[in-house]
Amino acid sequence: MLAGDLYAFQGLLSEDEAATVHRVRDFLTAEVVPIANDHWARAEFPSHLIKRFAGLGLAGHERSSLLNGWLALEMAHADASMATFYGVHAGLAMGSIQTCGSPEQRERWLPGMTAFDQIGAFALTEPTGGSDVAAGLRTTARRDGDTWVLDGQKRWIGNATFADLIVVWARDVADDQVKGFVVPGDAPGLTATKIENKIALRIVQNADIELVDVRVPEADRLQNANSFKDTAKILRETRSGVAWQAVGVMLAAYEIALAYAGEREQFGRPIAKFQLVQDLLVRMVGNVTGALGMCVRLAQLQDAGQYRDEHSALAKAYCTTRMREVVGWARELLAGNGIVLDYNIGRFVADAEALYSYEGTREINTLIVGRAITGHGAFV
Amino acid sequence: MLAGDLYAFQGLLSEDEAATVHRVRDFLTAEVVPIANDHWARAEFPSHLIKRFAGLGLAGHERSSLLNGWLALEMAHADASMATFYGVHAGLAMGSIQTCGSPEQRERWLPGMTAFDQIGAFALTEPTGGSDVAAGLRTTARRDGDTWVLDGQKRWIGNATFADLIVVWARDVADDQVKGFVVPGDAPGLTATKIENKIALRIVQNADIELVDVRVPEADRLQNANSFKDTAKILRETRSGVAWQAVGVMLAAYEIALAYAGEREQFGRPIAKFQLVQDLLVRMVGNVTGALGMCVRLAQLQDAGQYRDEHSALAKAYCTTRMREVVGWARELLAGNGIVLDYNIGRFVADAEALYSYEGTREINTLIVGRAITGHGAFV
Amino acid sequence: MLAGDLYAFQGLLSEDEAATVHRVRDFLTAEVVPIANDHWARAEFPSHLIKRFAGLGLAGHERSSLLNGWLALEMAHADASMATFYGVHAGLAMGSIQTCGSPEQRERWLPGMTAFDQIGAFALTEPTGGSDVAAGLRTTARRDGDTWVLDGQKRWIGNATFADLIVVWARDVADDQVKGFVVPGDAPGLTATKIENKIALRIVQNADIELVDVRVPEADRLQNANSFKDTAKILRETRSGVAWQAVGVMLAAYEIALAYAGEREQFGRPIAKFQLVQDLLVRMVGNVTGALGMCVRLAQLQDAGQYRDEHSALAKAYCTTRMREVVGWARELLAGNGIVLDYNIGRFVADAEALYSYEGTREINTLIVGRAITGHGAFV
Amino acid sequence: MLAGDLYAFQGLLSEDEAATVHRVRDFLTAEVVPIANDHWARAEFPSHLIKRFAGLGLAGHERSSLLNGWLALEMAHADASMATFYGVHAGLAMGSIQTCGSPEQRERWLPGMTAFDQIGAFALTEPTGGSDVAAGLRTTARRDGDTWVLDGQKRWIGNATFADLIVVWARDVADDQVKGFVVPGDAPGLTATKIENKIALRIVQNADIELVDVRVPEADRLQNANSFKDTAKILRETRSGVAWQAVGVMLAAYEIALAYAGEREQFGRPIAKFQLVQDLLVRMVGNVTGALGMCVRLAQLQDAGQYRDEHSALAKAYCTTRMREVVGWARELLAGNGIVLDYNIGRFVADAEALYSYEGTREINTLIVGRAITGHGAFV
Repeated sequence: MLAGDLYAFQGLLSEDEAATVHRVRDFLTAEVVPIANDHWARAEFPSHLIKRFAGLGLAGHERSSLLNGWLALEMAHADASMATFYGVHAGLAMGSIQTCGSPEQRERWLPGMTAFDQIGAFALTEPTGGSDVAAGLRTTARRDGDTWVLDGQKRWIGNATFADLIVVWARDVADDQVKGFVVPGDAPGLTATKIENKIALRIVQNADIELVDVRVPEADRLQNANSFKDTAKILRETRSGVAWQAVGVMLAAYEIALAYAGEREQFGRPIAKFQLVQDLLVRMVGNVTGALGMCVRLAQLQDAGQYRDEHSALAKAYCTTRMREVVGWARELLAGNGIVLDYNIGRFVADAEALYSYEGTREINTLIVGRAITGHGAFV
Repeated sequence: MLAGDLYAFQGLLSEDEAATVHRVRDFLTAEVVPIANDHWARAEFPSHLIKRFAGLGLAGHERSSLLNGWLALEMAHADASMATFYGVHAGLAMGSIQTCGSPEQRERWLPGMTAFDQIGAFALTEPTGGSDVAAGLRTTARRDGDTWVLDGQKRWIGNATFADLIVVWARDVADDQVKGFVVPGDAPGLTATKIENKIALRIVQNADIELVDVRVPEADRLQNANSFKDTAKILRETRSGVAWQAVGVMLAAYEIALAYAGEREQFGRPIAKFQLVQDLLVRMVGNVTGALGMCVRLAQLQDAGQYRDEHSALAKAYCTTRMREVVGWARELLAGNGIVLDYNIGRFVADAEALYSYEGTREINTLIVGRAITGHGAFV
Repeated sequence: MLAGDLYAFQGLLSEDEAATVHRVRDFLTAEVVPIANDHWARAEFPSHLIKRFAGLGLAGHERSSLLNGWLALEMAHADASMATFYGVHAGLAMGSIQTCGSPEQRERWLPGMTAFDQIGAFALTEPTGGSDVAAGLRTTARRDGDTWVLDGQKRWIGNATFADLIVVWARDVADDQVKGFVVPGDAPGLTATKIENKIALRIVQNADIELVDVRVPEADRLQNANSFKDTAKILRETRSGVAWQAVGVMLAAYEIALAYAGEREQFGRPIAKFQLVQDLLVRMVGNVTGALGMCVRLAQLQDAGQYRDEHSALAKAYCTTRMREVVGWARELLAGNGIVLDYNIGRFVADAEALYSYEGTREINTLIVGRAITGHGAFV
Repeated sequence: MLAGDLYAFQGLLSEDEAATVHRVRDFLTAEVVPIANDHWARAEFPSHLIKRFAGLGLAGHERSSLLNGWLALEMAHADASMATFYGVHAGLAMGSIQTCGSPEQRERWLPGMTAFDQIGAFALTEPTGGSDVAAGLRTTARRDGDTWVLDGQKRWIGNATFADLIVVWARDVADDQVKGFVVPGDAPGLTATKIENKIALRIVQNADIELVDVRVPEADRLQNANSFKDTAKILRETRSGVAWQAVGVMLAAYEIALAYAGEREQFGRPIAKFQLVQDLLVRMVGNVTGALGMCVRLAQLQDAGQYRDEHSALAKAYCTTRMREVVGWARELLAGNGIVLDYNIGRFVADAEALYSYEGTREINTLIVGRAITGHGAFV
């Protein structure tokens, strides 16, 4: 049981599920945690771990939403970048093909991705459109006989510097609908430039993508992605994933702070004995427990088919907001040592900022929930 | 389903339990809500409702912790004072007899209390000891043959102005242990003076109690209350009850604010259409959902026998803190109208302050959790 | 020096000004503080104090903005209701006549008001228009020869149940401009109904006003109030007054909490010795000091003629927000005793809610500042 | 005038002082701002700027506290690292010599430091003693005839990798008092190891220092540093400097956010037009204004000789807490772009964490103020 799981939420997993969790946790502890700070400092992706991920046998398998969520939690608890790498590949990219591909397309692409022989990326966001992703999408797709021609720019595309398959979303100039295309990472006309100088999720390789007359066969257009509504289905799933990641980050930050408080001495006693320090720790574990309670219920709604956009939007906004408080308190508790990567908390503090903003900012998720509960859209 | 139950937590109740909830909710809506503001304004208790409560058949019956909690939620959702009245009678007073009474004592007192023929109170807190209730207890019990003589002062004792039976906790001068006594409300030497000028829970009748040579037969001493540890067991139960009450208050505040936002117009449109208003509403429903998720898991731990002091202390501190935010945002949303009782929110704002402080302040509950997670007591 | 004035801001007053402050403070301590809780509980205005206020020689005299502000602070430090009574009479009502009246009108009305022989009120807000006061104003003025006929409804009008002169703002049906009229409190057709069941500023007598064919001679129309811009000038002044009042409330709450912390014992020592209690106190005094620093600079801008709408809007929103935190922490520190009026903090907690919302909610003042700093109006 | 100086606090500077500010601002804008992100990314100090700083003629000159503070603000507004470099050299190191040195010592060292020919550092903090700096100091000084022998460890010492003169604080084993020594950076036995992997103030070169039998002549012992009280005087000055730096960081973050909001479009309009964005901006400028008001009064107290430890402790704790909120809101506003250094906000977000913790954590400064206002020390 994780130290911060004070209410023993892990006990809600079945025995089999718990075994999977322990297997993944052991892998992360052994392989990811020891190298995370170093790769983060150098902003490099640990390519050697890709095949190790494959060995876990996670991608492409049906699971309860609770287990799915908990796995996201565990990954982020080790390293939010690796959780993001996995989420982009197995969630966004494979999820797009699973949800919007034809049977033939699923069979063609998913086995290689399941085996991590082919790594996926997901290219939706554009330089000028973050929150306004539906109406603001400017990348165009023009049909030319049996092929499509894609033109435009994408931004923030995770894994894109090394991805084998990039799911690119573009607006069909004929009918103005958003459609999805599976494009090889090395397609002529596609340039992916790594975004440098990040202060968060530095292990994730994000790229600016330029598409100039990129030609894609009709057979590589996702056959069941006919409008932005289909894209939105995928985002709904991944937003709940980010909520779980946020819990993982909180749990890690709490554990780091708790351990430090027990060891660090001031005025001749461990700082854990000071009221002001206990205050920080209890606020942290309160946030963790509330957020976990929210995510668990969200998973139940997912499996019961009662899951709506506002559910995942609320979880994403709420859990990442609470997470931001938690990592701040944890860093505060470590004082000066909190600003050196070696004490571990620094990476989580920094990465939290990316989680807070990606997959919909607090503002946009607030407005999604707001529209659902009031019946009034307030986006503009 | 309550409007603020966005994640449909109510769906976790069994069909039978849901029926009970609906029956109680209907009663509260019909009988309590319409009279609450008026009685609150006059600081009077609606005595005529006591027998109506009896008719609900709630007190003294075994139930799942989830249903128990949800009933506390529903009562506080209607009126926090009536929830407190019920909690003092059926939780604290009957709970003391149930937990610490002998079989004979349970049989002697509980049936009349179940029928609300006899109303209970619970006298633990003293003028000088709020947080420091164990070590600071000054009321004394001196054994004199087959009777005990109680002397001291109690403060904040709910229901005490009209209670038939008051469970009084006192320190045995012989062995320095805290023991419990069931004292008639009209016992010679016992004076209960109503606390006036309250700004919260004005419907609850709290009293200052003076005990001067109050004589109690040994047969009325709770036979299984041998030290403060036994008293603490009862508090652990009631603390989780306050967490559920806090959720009820949040839900009510949210509903009031949501309804108002839909009706109130400014600048030619319902204020629900403004981003700043949606921001308040979404923060509210986020807090509700996180707190509910915490309480639901707490109930599962209770029923599984895994429930520890720090669990209820965390829920009490966390949920009441979130509640205080929620009622503040709701009142803010109603602006000027929020300060008139008639718009309903005012009573919840005021009552929230009492819930925040009773059954252990945020500070004392923080230190209870802090001790459990760090292994260091920081009370002094 | 007030205990909470840690940075000795009072030292910025001239010797003469400090003498005035001390004179007023002594009066408030002797006359207002002792009766405030009792009148608050009964929601009654202490009429006997009106002439005592006159004796202070404050109304109608030119003073530095710093002294003006500090006097508002002192009044609110004693009782926010009395500060409001004074602000409505000497600020809003007399200010309207001073700013928008002709010389003849000023001479006709101001001397009696200066002597508190005639008490003023200010009727701008309407039931349907709080934030949207300019465009939403529905009370009409129709010219009929040498008289005007006023029709409409006003809400929240302080002092109006006993005011001699009410400055009523109405929209001229001829040119659609907002104009001001000085109407006797007992004018035929004007009905002022006291708003009951308030939970804040209960000493202030607010009224709902109904105007049915109220006839006002042209001579009683404020000759220099030609549009809402003139009204706005008055609001700008009073908003900074509310900021100062908020500081007064914070100072009072801090002093009450500090004194209580020094006297109340738990675990065998004054609670002032606990880290969690010092944390609350230091947060309070931080807020006080920041807010005071803001108000002092605001006063300098006022006297230098550099004062713009966004300055007062920011101070109003910021200082009342900080105040709300402070009274909450103070009440938390007093725990149970904080909910009984007798311990003083209860009244300030409750009254703070009214200050937070009147003279422009946080939302509307935010949007006023937002427009100034961004150049974009976001009201709708 | 800086965009965030809404209340025109700069107007409080004399004409001469304003000229100095503009000269420094121009230098910072031209020389520091353009290179800051690049050096931050590489964690390198821009040595070529040292002599440029000398050219400003700032160090070693008497100035009003207001101007001193404003210069710290300006430097941090450009780059918090360069402000720290300057603060360590001209504030901590030169300040120690100025305050605790004999006339001969001042004459010997200060001119070269004024000219930036010799750069200073200040070695007080130790690996085991952050908050508990007085009682916990373990570095020892043992007198051996006319020389002293220093042994121990220091941590976090800014500038120490290249400093010419390091002011080392050590405990005299003879009388147990803390004394100060001016030690050359290349003294035999002194090893300064750069602290790597920082996530904040990466331009500042902090070192772990090891002192093994470092011999210092008695003539290099600061003659007027006889106990920790003398060291504390210096800290009191520098704490107020950090408060001013915090304001500078806030101002920079606000300006970056405001400019971005005016340029970034979503849903077809600049995001500055959205209520949720204006809300963030107005919260920011509120914090800036309150903190500035506090700092200005603090400077007046300094110049009036009324300045006490609790004044600087409060300003340090309060302003850095507000700063942390502001940089968080600013980064939130920039969403994804906020995590790339190139958009400028990232550096300020990261650096804010160091300012929040150095020169006394929020906790320790809270307890310093708490002791002053309550009369009770609560450190242990």
